[in-house]
Amino acid sequence: MIHVGVNGYGTIGKRVADAVDMMPDMELTGVSKASPNHTADAAADRGYDIYVPEERHDRWADTEMTVTGDVHELIEISDIVADTTPPGMGAEYRPIYEEHDTPALFQGGESADAVEASFTARANYSEATNKDYVRIVSCNTTGLNRMFAPLHEEYGVERASITLVRCRGEHAVTSADPMTIPSYHGPDAREVIPDMGPITTMGMKTPSVRHHFHGINVTLGAEPTAAEVRDLLASESRIHVIDDDLGIDSGWELQEFALDRGRDRMNLYENQIFEDSITMDGTQLHLFQCIHRESDVVPESIDAIRAMLADADAVESIELTNEVMGIGDI
Amino acid sequence: MIHVGVNGYGTIGKRVADAVDMMPDMELTGVSKASPNHTADAAADRGYDIYVPEERHDRWADTEMTVTGDVHELIEISDIVADTTPPGMGAEYRPIYEEHDTPALFQGGESADAVEASFTARANYSEATNKDYVRIVSCNTTGLNRMFAPLHEEYGVERASITLVRCRGEHAVTSADPMTIPSYHGPDAREVIPDMGPITTMGMKTPSVRHHFHGINVTLGAEPTAAEVRDLLASESRIHVIDDDLGIDSGWELQEFALDRGRDRMNLYENQIFEDSITMDGTQLHLFQCIHRESDVVPESIDAIRAMLADADAVESIELTNEVMGIGDI
Repeated sequence: MIHVGVNGYGTIGKRVADAVDMMPDMELTGVSKASPNHTADAAADRGYDIYVPEERHDRWADTEMTVTGDVHELIEISDIVADTTPPGMGAEYRPIYEEHDTPALFQGGESADAVEASFTARANYSEATNKDYVRIVSCNTTGLNRMFAPLHEEYGVERASITLVRCRGEHAVTSADPMTIPSYHGPDAREVIPDMGPITTMGMKTPSVRHHFHGINVTLGAEPTAAEVRDLLASESRIHVIDDDLGIDSGWELQEFALDRGRDRMNLYENQIFEDSITMDGTQLHLFQCIHRESDVVPESIDAIRAMLADADAVESIELTNEVMGIGDI
Repeated sequence: MIHVGVNGYGTIGKRVADAVDMMPDMELTGVSKASPNHTADAAADRGYDIYVPEERHDRWADTEMTVTGDVHELIEISDIVADTTPPGMGAEYRPIYEEHDTPALFQGGESADAVEASFTARANYSEATNKDYVRIVSCNTTGLNRMFAPLHEEYGVERASITLVRCRGEHAVTSADPMTIPSYHGPDAREVIPDMGPITTMGMKTPSVRHHFHGINVTLGAEPTAAEVRDLLASESRIHVIDDDLGIDSGWELQEFALDRGRDRMNLYENQIFEDSITMDGTQLHLFQCIHRESDVVPESIDAIRAMLADADAVESIELTNEVMGIGDI
């Protein structure tokens, strides 16, 4: 039994905590939370022990919410911590994890320098074995790598040029994000799959929610038909090729799709690739995919924990994670 | 047992169908759907019989989806039809309902002239008794009436001026919607509660989703304290006064709130009134509330069906609907 603590209970952390709680080989030691708001109340409602940074304890004293202990205690009683704190804060926590001799799994908001390996289960599971500090790459990069891995194995990825239209929501305009090219996603993808050709990613942000939208262009080392590429991608357990007949063409329809299927918290763990969009022109592959920013890294987090503790091989871990979380049931 | 057909299976229709299906005194005869897309597939997945307009049958023939029959058959086998077709189409369907001698409940997209009564359960339940053609007022008007009814009973509503910031999403700008003042919501509210003073509603639309946001100003016939108004509104079963401590201040947080609580399809049937915003200045009441556009009229539809068929009184119906749908459990 692996005792897992979740440090940070935001968009990703609450979903990682749920996933850990569901796994038969894991036990959730608790979650950390700084503010006693409705998210904390929901964590208590789901039966999770809540640990609070010591300097924040007085903010909780006025509420009816129960604090189990300090974050240091959570780190101490855990075999491993899933760090889902805001970007950059993981690096600040790393000395504290070292002090407690507790391995930690970080998210894509931490830089490659801050860890020993960057991880996508389908692409480089064994790279994390027996490492103490590993990061999941960002949700967009995870989605890219799940698609790149089979394409690269089957045909070779010679080059790729990707436009990432990211959902942000702060401003009712489209912006470059960042203005410099590439965004961090391309280099991060090659941290995980180093022998691909150049990957250029250009990020934008729009006032939309929940799903990032990718315009994908890949130069392959072969000339498969669109149907062959479709079948290859559809055979991947964490890619859902959306049947044309379903009439889904937007992040909005994907939200309805997830809600109609009763997915907890609207989670879509799989890349959502639009069948209609898969197009081959010589060696050039074009397609659109959507990435649910809130949940696509969650199964990777579970697999990374097993990989780091050498508790299962890639196939065993991915199959168990998929089965417990219902990945592939749509 | 009341046999209910749902004509139109869109945003509202699918939720009304779910609610009918849950009620112990109702049986869902089926739903109508024009296009064989993912929503139709989801209806089949929930076990609902699907009826299709005859002229659309050939579009379904190429799919694996099963058509139970024509919409005329659905109308014929139903004791009452909940018409959730797009705005204005209900009026076109009315002669067909008359032909089959089947009463019909319309939504707020139909005009007051097209029906015998406009309905909000808390305000005028008995107005619908033994009527054949009734409409639920729109989601925004339903939300207003739930708030007006107790305020008017307790203090008198002398005048109200409401700004409705509506979620639409088509354009990344704010627009007047409509440019003329008042929007239809104020007159509709007085269709239901005729003895209130003048109600002026001004509509805008913004590129946001799921929750309408209301800026409310009401001149009361008394000078209660804000705490008294808060307690009055909180005592209403279809109003949720959001505790300050939960830190909810946006439609975004409300979506997370509904998802965290496991509400099916993210439904928030209750008006969501922000406790922090409830302010009294002499006879002037100010507050913010959010209305979940997809689900707030659903319990009203269930109650209207019972009212029209004289199957239960207001208290019985509202209590049963609330209990079965979990309204008030948050």
